[in-house]
Amino acid sequence: MSAAAASRGRVRFTEVGPRDGFQNWPDPVSTETKLWLIGAALDAGVDRVEATSFVSPKWVPQMADAEAVASALTAEQMARTRLLVPNLKGLERALETGGTNVLVNVGATDGFNRHNLNRGVEESMADIGEVLQAAKPRGVRVDVAISVVWGCPYDGPVDVHVPIELGRRLQQMGCAEIVFGDTIGVATPSGVRELASLAVEQLDGVELSMHFHDTRGMALANALVALDCGVRAFEGSIGGIGGCPFAPNSTGNVCSEDLLDMVRDLGYKTGVDLETMVDTARQLSDRLQAELPGRLHRAGPAPWLVKMPA
Amino acid sequence: MSAAAASRGRVRFTEVGPRDGFQNWPDPVSTETKLWLIGAALDAGVDRVEATSFVSPKWVPQMADAEAVASALTAEQMARTRLLVPNLKGLERALETGGTNVLVNVGATDGFNRHNLNRGVEESMADIGEVLQAAKPRGVRVDVAISVVWGCPYDGPVDVHVPIELGRRLQQMGCAEIVFGDTIGVATPSGVRELASLAVEQLDGVELSMHFHDTRGMALANALVALDCGVRAFEGSIGGIGGCPFAPNSTGNVCSEDLLDMVRDLGYKTGVDLETMVDTARQLSDRLQAELPGRLHRAGPAPWLVKMPA
Repeated sequence: MSAAAASRGRVRFTEVGPRDGFQNWPDPVSTETKLWLIGAALDAGVDRVEATSFVSPKWVPQMADAEAVASALTAEQMARTRLLVPNLKGLERALETGGTNVLVNVGATDGFNRHNLNRGVEESMADIGEVLQAAKPRGVRVDVAISVVWGCPYDGPVDVHVPIELGRRLQQMGCAEIVFGDTIGVATPSGVRELASLAVEQLDGVELSMHFHDTRGMALANALVALDCGVRAFEGSIGGIGGCPFAPNSTGNVCSEDLLDMVRDLGYKTGVDLETMVDTARQLSDRLQAELPGRLHRAGPAPWLVKMPA
Repeated sequence: MSAAAASRGRVRFTEVGPRDGFQNWPDPVSTETKLWLIGAALDAGVDRVEATSFVSPKWVPQMADAEAVASALTAEQMARTRLLVPNLKGLERALETGGTNVLVNVGATDGFNRHNLNRGVEESMADIGEVLQAAKPRGVRVDVAISVVWGCPYDGPVDVHVPIELGRRLQQMGCAEIVFGDTIGVATPSGVRELASLAVEQLDGVELSMHFHDTRGMALANALVALDCGVRAFEGSIGGIGGCPFAPNSTGNVCSEDLLDMVRDLGYKTGVDLETMVDTARQLSDRLQAELPGRLHRAGPAPWLVKMPA
């Protein structure tokens, strides 16, 4: 509490629940609920929402309404929206809905990339090059998420220099932000310190973000270490919903409001109203008729910090 | 992973599941299961197990078999066992079973202490004085846990100097270890840094331990900060079972094996075999026929670190 008085600066936050959280949800999620969540998160003050994914509905049926979701966004909402696209075709679909910021994925390992995208890492890097080339003249911002940065279910441990080198190439190729993803939740504080300190040092000039999973309980400890190394952007999923359908045991996106609560405690500004986020997580739990893994929305903030709902 | 190579020293660990975990369990837990868990945790290499509590069965029916549990321990087990006693009468009961290490509680606030122990803080301090006086000539080690150190459900925020001053007095009174407890899970990294750095500086010469709750998801981040400040002893509950029956929303003892996994990652030695702990948590889940809140025993260690069970 004490450190919060003197701000240590700004931390950017991207809410990925509407895409990463719903993508793997076992029951159908209505377009209306997706649009409600996107609006609620933006109203709470998150910098950006990852709203949907322009993948094939064959692979991810939950995202079959990508056009409907993206087209329903207001221009103001779209300005703070990121859209996941697997390739050039996905980019074209995203652009048709008025998208201005897209995210492309590449795995840190061939094993994961082949399972996830059905192609090798170098093939995906070439795809990303195409997306960047097509996006640039249209003024579209392209972010790239590197998956399984701290370990891969197929290829095992990942040398820290592999994602750093991919990041270096992606920076040169012109991507705006590099997201290091702990897709299967095996990152630990020592591994995060190693990667984050290298990334901050070697990838100067590109935006750096991290996406942790709480699969083994270390997501917040990892974020704390990343902050300590100078990382100033994170992703999270409201209520802690979601995982990755292609990675065994990958449950547990870090919970947005739990993470933001810690970030606030450490003295950083996020611009997010935590009470609104907690309230939104509770409403989401009601809408989905499911208990969500996040903690803060269930326990409530410390009783003297924020008024508890009646 | 990398930091683990160069050990940063020893971290002591006390498994409190058999007492704090079972104390509030909704279904009856057999004496046999308690003894199994005590034996399994000691076999896994934890320094100490908090085995049971000599409170009135009127208040905590789950601990009605305290004599049966403690008396069944071998001398070797008892040497690594701590017994919770509320007062002098509890101490006498513990000593009759051959106890050599007891724990007494005091709240950091009158509000909590009255709800928990039905007396003010100063009355409890006097009780602790009696326990210490009676224990000393018999060579019994007395630890004291200070509850609601980072905040109280009845009295609100707690000034950091209050638990520090209680700790100073307890040290002078002759207690061996002071445990700072986040009874309702409101501790945050900034608050832990504030208290832990003061405690390490001002309570030199007494053993310091911390007991976190994961109620709001910050238990491991808090432990990381405490380690960083020089705290070298923690408590945890296997599988994350248990809470405090007198504190609203206090679910979520930090999970032993999740915590120990992080402590190991940070390069400290604990002497605990993590695979045995994980296996024990899984067996406990089977015995209780309940999903437990801990993460590691459900997700399994990173596949390349430890062989996953078939």
